Amino acid sequence: MAQINENYLKLQAGYLFPEIGRRVREYQASHPDAKIIRMGIGDVVLPLAPSVINAFHEGVDEMARQTTFKGYGPEQGYDFLREAIKNNDYKERGVDLSIDEIFISDGSKCDTGNILEIFGAKNTIAVQDPAYPVYVDTTVMGGRTGKVQQNGFYEGIVYMPCTAENHFSPSLPSQKADLIFLCYPNNPTGTTATKEELAKWVSYAKANKSIILFDAAYEAFISEDHVPHSIYEIEGAKEVAIEFRSFSKTAGFTGTRCAFTVVPKELMGYTESGEAYSIHKLWYRRQSTKFNQVSYPVQKAAAAIYTPEGKKEVKATIAYYMENARIMRESFTQLGFKVFGGINAPYVWIHSGSGLTSWELFDKLLSEAHVVGTPGSGFGPSGEGYFRFSSFADREKVVEAMERIKKIRL
Amino acid sequence: MAQINENYLKLQAGYLFPEIGRRVREYQASHPDAKIIRMGIGDVVLPLAPSVINAFHEGVDEMARQTTFKGYGPEQGYDFLREAIKNNDYKERGVDLSIDEIFISDGSKCDTGNILEIFGAKNTIAVQDPAYPVYVDTTVMGGRTGKVQQNGFYEGIVYMPCTAENHFSPSLPSQKADLIFLCYPNNPTGTTATKEELAKWVSYAKANKSIILFDAAYEAFISEDHVPHSIYEIEGAKEVAIEFRSFSKTAGFTGTRCAFTVVPKELMGYTESGEAYSIHKLWYRRQSTKFNQVSYPVQKAAAAIYTPEGKKEVKATIAYYMENARIMRESFTQLGFKVFGGINAPYVWIHSGSGLTSWELFDKLLSEAHVVGTPGSGFGPSGEGYFRFSSFADREKVVEAMERIKKIRL
Repeated sequence: MAQINENYLKLQAGYLFPEIGRRVREYQASHPDAKIIRMGIGDVVLPLAPSVINAFHEGVDEMARQTTFKGYGPEQGYDFLREAIKNNDYKERGVDLSIDEIFISDGSKCDTGNILEIFGAKNTIAVQDPAYPVYVDTTVMGGRTGKVQQNGFYEGIVYMPCTAENHFSPSLPSQKADLIFLCYPNNPTGTTATKEELAKWVSYAKANKSIILFDAAYEAFISEDHVPHSIYEIEGAKEVAIEFRSFSKTAGFTGTRCAFTVVPKELMGYTESGEAYSIHKLWYRRQSTKFNQVSYPVQKAAAAIYTPEGKKEVKATIAYYMENARIMRESFTQLGFKVFGGINAPYVWIHSGSGLTSWELFDKLLSEAHVVGTPGSGFGPSGEGYFRFSSFADREKVVEAMERIKKIRL
Repeated sequence: MAQINENYLKLQAGYLFPEIGRRVREYQASHPDAKIIRMGIGDVVLPLAPSVINAFHEGVDEMARQTTFKGYGPEQGYDFLREAIKNNDYKERGVDLSIDEIFISDGSKCDTGNILEIFGAKNTIAVQDPAYPVYVDTTVMGGRTGKVQQNGFYEGIVYMPCTAENHFSPSLPSQKADLIFLCYPNNPTGTTATKEELAKWVSYAKANKSIILFDAAYEAFISEDHVPHSIYEIEGAKEVAIEFRSFSKTAGFTGTRCAFTVVPKELMGYTESGEAYSIHKLWYRRQSTKFNQVSYPVQKAAAAIYTPEGKKEVKATIAYYMENARIMRESFTQLGFKVFGGINAPYVWIHSGSGLTSWELFDKLLSEAHVVGTPGSGFGPSGEGYFRFSSFADREKVVEAMERIKKIRL
């Protein structure tokens, strides 16, 4: 008898974004004339940069000729892309990596989920609350939790509340935490951590032989000089942290698919009996056995982001989105909301202070303003009462959405 | 303390393809003038078809304009590609699928490995022996086996020997087998199963509530009319089988990356207490949580395979490879080898009958003819004494390799 993985049955109803989709579709079906503005899913709207498009076409052309055709590529991705990452994303910030420590992949969603496979089932996992739902869902799917409780928390996960009260900067866990998901700039709150805060985590991890799973997918949106771009800017972090980066938001690759993960060679995990073992070796074995790399033309397109032209173009796109964030920040501040994020991240995180739950605000905005955002509670219990707006939208739509929201009673 | 997944430590060190690479590099280093012909890894050499290239470029162009730009795509892949698959790969062969049952992915390697995640840890897994190494390796990584034994078998896996003696068609297992990997046309033996043989498996699965994981990655190479292309050609198979297909070999997509998996809605798995649960629902949840679909231009390129022009071009490429297979079959037959496969699959599977082990033959061919193939024992203990040649090579190299082999003493 083929038995299912019953851990899946512990998962709460729908993954957040399909649930938003369902409610929007239902509303649209019963109100066909409503012009709904979608700022819920953090999906980009501007086209790929010209340099990226050119390189993408060149890559396709190479696939058309036998002399330049590419079959299976190198197991960790092409050197040209890993060299560009190493030099531009790290070396320029004083972080020395070898290209062997960089693994190209088709997305940070995949990597942040799959990474748990190389760790034992008994690890306790800590997450910021609220957080990107993949961390918790994949922890549940892997059998590392008990059931979900009345308060929305799964048994066995260490939740670290991030609210306005602690400036969205969680305290160190009092319980044991073996694997710690940290996301900075943060999705969904849009907030960042200082070097001192990250250093605190690095020493906690060292002291406890824990590993930090550092999601830096929104690194490109950092505008303030003092904000660290990589956890490896903290001394000793290479011994305790894996870093996830993505081109999805950086360069509009949500539909093109390319990302990377850094696994330093000095990073160690432990057998039950306490023997150290290379995490790099395990991830290499996982990826070379269960993954077959990213399309060659896509890797070629991604490398173009690092050319002088590419950099300029990508920066302009990011500036466009961040101006959207500024407009939203201003509007919600005027409306009396408490407003966070939106300065070093493409997300604006608001709290109405009115006692409305996140889903109540969602339904109100959908039905009265025809505007879709993301309910904060969808990211975890501590997100209740909060709401996320994504700056990935056309300017005119952002302006229109803010106009509409100003007209309804909130 | 971050604990590793210790199941990884059970994996055998001398993994097949790296070991081949090592021996070839060593030989080349000490014989720098040797012109080595590589027919070991099954990687394609001919460029993408013109129709595919055109569609790929069109897809890239759409990503360059805001009005046609694509961000995150549908969670199971674009309808246009799933419709093309449904109509051409299935409806034309009398198999009715809904497009909801088709999941686009970036490779069958990923899917055949990842599929195990949705099943419980207590399932017993059966594999053909020899087999594509991913089935066994991912079973080990998921903790479903004991240690590897002296005879090369892992404790807890049901191995089903496939040798010339049983015409490479394994008997039904006498032990319980909950998940059964079957690969037809087979990698590495190049052999196929008749409808009657598949029907035997379907009734076994029904009787035992088992699930067949049917890998049909080489389906496009079938040349004989009576050979089934899909397990769903067998009545009742939709209740017991998942089917994996790939564009990697079909259309030269090893470096372009696109594949698909069919999970019928009537397919059920069971909770430990025996309650039926939809496997489709579980796979949908797995894929929507841990995967973010295939690059839009790649999906567009893949769909072009199904246009009238695309079909013609892809057929011509396959015919080229299959003529290579014919040449190899003829040469090895003349040399007195027992020869299998190579008629409905791009692999020719030979046995010298001389008592040489697979690795002995490997070393002999490398050092005396400068030709690289794949030792059969690398695919499992029952592959011992056999050897695989891949037809994915330039014609002139195939001819040259056969000439060289004829000149040595075998």
